[in-house]
Amino acid sequence: MKQMNVFLRACLLALSLSSSAALLAETVEKWGLYEIELDGPSDGNPFLDVELEATFTNGYTSKTVSGFYDGEGIYRIRFMPEAVGEWRYTTQSNDWSLTKQSGTFTVTEPSEGNHGPVGVYETYHFAYADGTPYKQFGTTIYNWIDAPESLQEETLRTLAESPFNKARMLLTQQPTPYRNEYAPPRWPYVGTPPHDWDFTRFNPEFFRHYEKRIEQLRDLGIEADIILFNPYGKFGFESLDAEGDERFVRYVVARFGAYRNVWWSLANEYDFLKTKTEADWERIGRLVMQCDPFNHLRSIHNGHLLFDHRQDWVTHVSVQDGHACESPASAKIYRDAFRKPVVFDEIKYEGDAKFRWADLDGKGMTHRFWAAMMAGTYVGHGDYFNTLDEDTWTSFGGKILGDSVPRIAFLREIVEDGPKAGLNLIDSWMNPGMTGVAGEYYLQYFGRETPEEWEFKLYKGLEAGTRFKVEIIDAWNMSITPVKGIFEIGEKDGYYHYDTKGRKITLSGKPYQALRITRVD
Amino acid sequence: MKQMNVFLRACLLALSLSSSAALLAETVEKWGLYEIELDGPSDGNPFLDVELEATFTNGYTSKTVSGFYDGEGIYRIRFMPEAVGEWRYTTQSNDWSLTKQSGTFTVTEPSEGNHGPVGVYETYHFAYADGTPYKQFGTTIYNWIDAPESLQEETLRTLAESPFNKARMLLTQQPTPYRNEYAPPRWPYVGTPPHDWDFTRFNPEFFRHYEKRIEQLRDLGIEADIILFNPYGKFGFESLDAEGDERFVRYVVARFGAYRNVWWSLANEYDFLKTKTEADWERIGRLVMQCDPFNHLRSIHNGHLLFDHRQDWVTHVSVQDGHACESPASAKIYRDAFRKPVVFDEIKYEGDAKFRWADLDGKGMTHRFWAAMMAGTYVGHGDYFNTLDEDTWTSFGGKILGDSVPRIAFLREIVEDGPKAGLNLIDSWMNPGMTGVAGEYYLQYFGRETPEEWEFKLYKGLEAGTRFKVEIIDAWNMSITPVKGIFEIGEKDGYYHYDTKGRKITLSGKPYQALRITRVD
Repeated sequence: MKQMNVFLRACLLALSLSSSAALLAETVEKWGLYEIELDGPSDGNPFLDVELEATFTNGYTSKTVSGFYDGEGIYRIRFMPEAVGEWRYTTQSNDWSLTKQSGTFTVTEPSEGNHGPVGVYETYHFAYADGTPYKQFGTTIYNWIDAPESLQEETLRTLAESPFNKARMLLTQQPTPYRNEYAPPRWPYVGTPPHDWDFTRFNPEFFRHYEKRIEQLRDLGIEADIILFNPYGKFGFESLDAEGDERFVRYVVARFGAYRNVWWSLANEYDFLKTKTEADWERIGRLVMQCDPFNHLRSIHNGHLLFDHRQDWVTHVSVQDGHACESPASAKIYRDAFRKPVVFDEIKYEGDAKFRWADLDGKGMTHRFWAAMMAGTYVGHGDYFNTLDEDTWTSFGGKILGDSVPRIAFLREIVEDGPKAGLNLIDSWMNPGMTGVAGEYYLQYFGRETPEEWEFKLYKGLEAGTRFKVEIIDAWNMSITPVKGIFEIGEKDGYYHYDTKGRKITLSGKPYQALRITRVD
Repeated sequence: MKQMNVFLRACLLALSLSSSAALLAETVEKWGLYEIELDGPSDGNPFLDVELEATFTNGYTSKTVSGFYDGEGIYRIRFMPEAVGEWRYTTQSNDWSLTKQSGTFTVTEPSEGNHGPVGVYETYHFAYADGTPYKQFGTTIYNWIDAPESLQEETLRTLAESPFNKARMLLTQQPTPYRNEYAPPRWPYVGTPPHDWDFTRFNPEFFRHYEKRIEQLRDLGIEADIILFNPYGKFGFESLDAEGDERFVRYVVARFGAYRNVWWSLANEYDFLKTKTEADWERIGRLVMQCDPFNHLRSIHNGHLLFDHRQDWVTHVSVQDGHACESPASAKIYRDAFRKPVVFDEIKYEGDAKFRWADLDGKGMTHRFWAAMMAGTYVGHGDYFNTLDEDTWTSFGGKILGDSVPRIAFLREIVEDGPKAGLNLIDSWMNPGMTGVAGEYYLQYFGRETPEEWEFKLYKGLEAGTRFKVEIIDAWNMSITPVKGIFEIGEKDGYYHYDTKGRKITLSGKPYQALRITRVD
């Protein structure tokens, strides 16, 4: 899509079209980004004065999308088409030069790798709009976009080689400048840091840069979980009145909402942000839902006080609770309570233990990923090693120094090879270590336990004579070892089915073992 | 209060008052049960034909309470006064002989041991109406009221000696007759078991007997958590239409609602009852809330599918999830998610392991009580040993055979001696074993861990110089051993305060140890 936009802009330039949209037979792929660029007034305060939107229709459905002012007299309206075929649009505005502009374009089939935006799937899981499962493997790079350009480029290279398909990132700045020597070059509002801002004027350059990074993440297959507000920055961005918040949210959603890989996170540690109440978050959450015509995923992340994720605008549960990820049975409680997908967006970071919220070792991080994934919940990684040369991955990107990443990649391969619909505990009260699809596929994770053998024993959904192959997985050493022979289900004995020959599986006696038990057709 | 009623009835008899209420200067204590007895029609079907209610007022507040037909031409209206002073009432009815009856009575101060009904206290806890904390220690005796009379009497004796202050009990019968030889002598509807019922006629004798047991529990200081519907009985009581359910609920609430020790549990394992949908439970829950003028606690207990306890008619979370009680951090998630008191009404039973839901040993049951209590949640006990002489405690009452009860009594003493407001985790992400009130009172429970020493180390709310005494608790062997000397808080070092002399506490290295750390004034 980036290419398309560049092409479109080039056409507009070549044809010297002004004050009207291109009338070419343009094409854009489904879930791509179609952008209308219009010339309009630059005097007064366009952010306040000019209202602009466009209604898009293919004859069957229509959507009205807000535009935004991009500076220097340029206005844009961005649209993410959700159906192939011919579309047309007409603009409406309170400015004569921007209103009643219309055009047509053709939406083509999505290109390879474009599966559309991610949504909720089967209550507890996620899938792309085309039905492809999306198993969330997140990482956290709060302020990577405020780091020096070279470090941002390194972050993209690190992500490209990582197992992560979601990046959690702040929209506005954290107070700590990179290495205490570097100040962010771009700010969301016009003005001078730290406190001299014109909150009625956004800085398009900041947002253009941010968008470039969203596009690059998209092209790497990574969802951008954008945190609208945070309690860390002391620049006043979180202390606006309701009108100021609404202006900010509408501007951000108008600019970013047509990127298919965007998720909205209202806040990080919302309860640590003392300038907003729960009623404010309700208002903002509802606003995001109402002004995003593409219905991107929405949540909010907690400090000490879990948010009331039952609210209808919350699409999935975003939780900080590392302890819950110690065992699948605990992680699952969040699913049960909210009946929504659960993402543990903070489970403590892998780090050098300078801070107690960053004292996991590689095994601890890997274990928490495994335990939560077993429960059919999802996890966000963080890496927090203070070195001489750079700040941490989770603060500013760069390199990941912890040991968990290859193990998370290994886990991701297993999960991606597993049931399409996602993992769900099979016998959660009695054996919370077993997940999968009863009768078809089982993953038994032993966590920190150190068994030396496991009796082949399955709980339910089984017919005698069903045959399974078994593999022993070492979650830490990243090995998968097939067990010799085929296991065959006998008659039910009490609650369980056993192998007809009563076989047991010999295990290593080390922690972090698992078994994969797959039905043989 | 039973005495008062007997006295009142005797007066009515002596004065040969008929078709009108007593006009004596009667007295009843606050939160006692005031009963109006009226003679009315016995022809037709009084359960369907006669509407009766009374409005009670003390000049400041008024409440309208439904009456009920008690058979043989007798109608009753029961009222639990919530304020001392003079009260009067007037009845309304669609029958001339029952309407416009009026009377006055005096409400006196409650007698010793009468603290009123239990309600929610400080979001996560319970207290009686007079402010006395109520720390819930429940047990489960589903069908004790259908057991032979001698066994019911034994059950009351067992309860009297137990630490339990709540009994969970079904209203209608389980299918299993006591020892397969005994059928319940009383049924809630007129008719013949198993399926020949007139669902428009209640059996007053059944309810009078049930009420006697509610009164006896009340006099033992035990709350009656009455389960209105259950999936076990196959007698058709759970398969009525909405009108039939409403008749049943209104009759039960009119009869039982004025007993101060009543709690409403809509169902046991609601999701196992296939004749009702979640919409039905919503309807019934709302009905109970609307027709109970005394606002008793309301919840519903789950099988595999946790109920959506966010609903406004749900006063507290009633959960079946034994695994969550293995660790305080897990138990606490239910509090966080629902922001209501949490009662784990089923955590598996202590039993002989014939069934896997009844395979806890005494240590397992005791540990789950401790772990959940540490989280500031509450637990229900069950005891399920099949013996030759009787069925199990949890099915039919009688004797408790498990080993946990004295340990639960020991725990209850500790909890009752602890903070009035109840226990709350102090540093839940980092040390979910520590509960109490920061700066004042700490209980550190080590659970199944087997530490041999503990460094005196407290997290927050502390000033240097504050002094504490420490006791070592053995939760299983029920001992409390003071540690010699006083511990004094030093300056904060990182996240923690330590003893000024850096002392450590020597522990036994056994499981189920705890520490009680109390501020010395």
